[in-house]
Amino acid sequence: MHLWARYLILVLGLFTGLHYVLRLTQDSYSQATSFENIALHLKGSTKEAPGAQSEPETYHHLNVNSSFALLAKRRANATFVILARNSDLNGTVQSVYQIEERFNKKHRYPYVFLNDEPFTEEFKQRISLMTSSLTEFGVIPSQHWNQPDWIDEEKAKKFRDKLVEQDIIYGGSVSYRNMCRFNSGFFFKQELMQKYRWYWRIEPDVNFHCDIDFDPFTFMEDNNKVYGFTITPYEFEATIPSLWGHVQDFMKQHPEYIAQDNAMGFMSNDGGEHYNLCHFWSNFEIADMEFWRAPAYSAFFNYLDSTGGFYYERWGDAPVHSLAAAMFAKKDEIHFFNEIGYGHHPFTHCPRDENVYTKGRCNCDRQQSFDYHGYSCMIHWDKLTGRV
Amino acid sequence: MHLWARYLILVLGLFTGLHYVLRLTQDSYSQATSFENIALHLKGSTKEAPGAQSEPETYHHLNVNSSFALLAKRRANATFVILARNSDLNGTVQSVYQIEERFNKKHRYPYVFLNDEPFTEEFKQRISLMTSSLTEFGVIPSQHWNQPDWIDEEKAKKFRDKLVEQDIIYGGSVSYRNMCRFNSGFFFKQELMQKYRWYWRIEPDVNFHCDIDFDPFTFMEDNNKVYGFTITPYEFEATIPSLWGHVQDFMKQHPEYIAQDNAMGFMSNDGGEHYNLCHFWSNFEIADMEFWRAPAYSAFFNYLDSTGGFYYERWGDAPVHSLAAAMFAKKDEIHFFNEIGYGHHPFTHCPRDENVYTKGRCNCDRQQSFDYHGYSCMIHWDKLTGRV
Repeated sequence: MHLWARYLILVLGLFTGLHYVLRLTQDSYSQATSFENIALHLKGSTKEAPGAQSEPETYHHLNVNSSFALLAKRRANATFVILARNSDLNGTVQSVYQIEERFNKKHRYPYVFLNDEPFTEEFKQRISLMTSSLTEFGVIPSQHWNQPDWIDEEKAKKFRDKLVEQDIIYGGSVSYRNMCRFNSGFFFKQELMQKYRWYWRIEPDVNFHCDIDFDPFTFMEDNNKVYGFTITPYEFEATIPSLWGHVQDFMKQHPEYIAQDNAMGFMSNDGGEHYNLCHFWSNFEIADMEFWRAPAYSAFFNYLDSTGGFYYERWGDAPVHSLAAAMFAKKDEIHFFNEIGYGHHPFTHCPRDENVYTKGRCNCDRQQSFDYHGYSCMIHWDKLTGRV
Repeated sequence: MHLWARYLILVLGLFTGLHYVLRLTQDSYSQATSFENIALHLKGSTKEAPGAQSEPETYHHLNVNSSFALLAKRRANATFVILARNSDLNGTVQSVYQIEERFNKKHRYPYVFLNDEPFTEEFKQRISLMTSSLTEFGVIPSQHWNQPDWIDEEKAKKFRDKLVEQDIIYGGSVSYRNMCRFNSGFFFKQELMQKYRWYWRIEPDVNFHCDIDFDPFTFMEDNNKVYGFTITPYEFEATIPSLWGHVQDFMKQHPEYIAQDNAMGFMSNDGGEHYNLCHFWSNFEIADMEFWRAPAYSAFFNYLDSTGGFYYERWGDAPVHSLAAAMFAKKDEIHFFNEIGYGHHPFTHCPRDENVYTKGRCNCDRQQSFDYHGYSCMIHWDKLTGRV
């Protein structure tokens, strides 16, 4: 062998050895030298992505060559989805800042922002400053958002007035109802969402309280989960007087959609006669859009929508999603993300387990965790899943 | 030269070259391979510091060999100082989490926590979870905190009642007055503070809105600064009716302490006849304790304290510190930290300059920045320092 070749082999061997030792022992070395970071650095920081002109709603804060990046780390086909108004900008920035710090700066999952009117330039710029991921901004088609023409407005108004009298939150709001119907049946139909299977729903002004040292998306994928939650409260009965009756009717009409080993036991304490009002709080969701796009949920949503209950009552997307997950998924396909410290006013899930809390460097107060407070359904979930 | 020696020189040269290229180009590589991080990794993570038994109030989350660490990065002789009650735990955790994320995880400056009663174990543990720095917890001696015996309580109560009638914030609170007097004259005298020269004062429930990509302590040191601020509002006149008169008296009695080129022009719009109520908002301070420990400030504080005005009126530590800085320091020794996005309810300083805002990845709203709002004195500061 030539002398230069022997030098070369020795040097390469030493480099490789050092590289792997550092990658195994030092998180930040691993970050610094991952293919995606080196690619980012070589390409420089720019908001002008190739093809940006043909995709005016697409902002790249850094120009990620995603095929190159994917060589380095396995990622799910997943996105964050955030419904926000322009006036929610400060709260949205806070939420994105926190999920980036606690999770996404290591993963660079993309974001889809949705609004019933165009996002301002200021909104796009301030959001793009918070993340190196792809950020896309979409406008929701009117027919996915506004109260349909066939809704009897007089009848709808009568119920809104009644809820206002009862002091029910958002009782008089039409736009809140638009949002609930949109989140129930349309967010996963948006053009920008079509390329993704998995999503993590985030709202403005939420808090992520712990480092998330695993990838919830690939966890879902690897463990055959379809729906993940952190908080499960009781619904206000006044907002859904006829919902349970419709669910019962649907189940009779479509027994073929009802899963074996489903979670309906979580929804009723008397074998299905009454709804116990338990639901997953859908302002946090990590879930599989194939579930919402499948025939069972399509039939369910269309049936519910045809009753007008989103406007004649005040059905939330939380009970609608939750009842669907409980009917159409196996209970093992629904996952409680204990590790994810999460707050949405007025409730917080803070991991109670000392090891989880410490490992996550959580900044929440365990004594204020909602899990086993009076309004929480967690104890029902524990019963269903055999945790107690 | 032997063959092995030639191999060795080549390999060392290549390693060194690669190392410096990566350090110069990759922040996170630089972090991963700094002496302090490698030292930390080699020593492992433990809360049991050598000598912990003899220092029961000292918590090390990670066992930093500080002399080894100092090889790698120059640090000032500086500490954070946080006055908090046990009931402020959640807000204190939030503040520490944010300063760590935005600044201190790269620097590991220590913390001193002060309280008028012992901190709970829960307080110490939750704080220590937020930082790898040294954290020390001290109890303030009663004579540094409580209303002195020689204060005429009847007279003090009369004024408190008057401020309550006028709806002045904390008007009726004795503990607020204790705190203001403590922050004016005693925090830098605490035992745990003795080993430090520089401090950064932080309160529970404050926000740091931007990455702080420089070291404000070494900046102060290198640029001969003694006092740094971010927000400068007007004081409530009702809380300090006699303060300006005392300041004028003190200046007459002690002309030897008054600095040339001082900042007193910031404090009066009529050449010193009246106080314009401008002051630096002292819930944020980065400053030099040698300034407070020097004869000028000692004489000033002792004089003010002897009048009883901390209790007979409701003097804040903010105007007291500010007036002292304006008298005893040169105006060039007082620094406005524009880059440090900072919020303390109800005011926020958010950098207005586009480049500073972007570089800092700030999550505040520039339109809500306090700098040039009606209650801000910034315009006076700009005039004094020739920025406008």
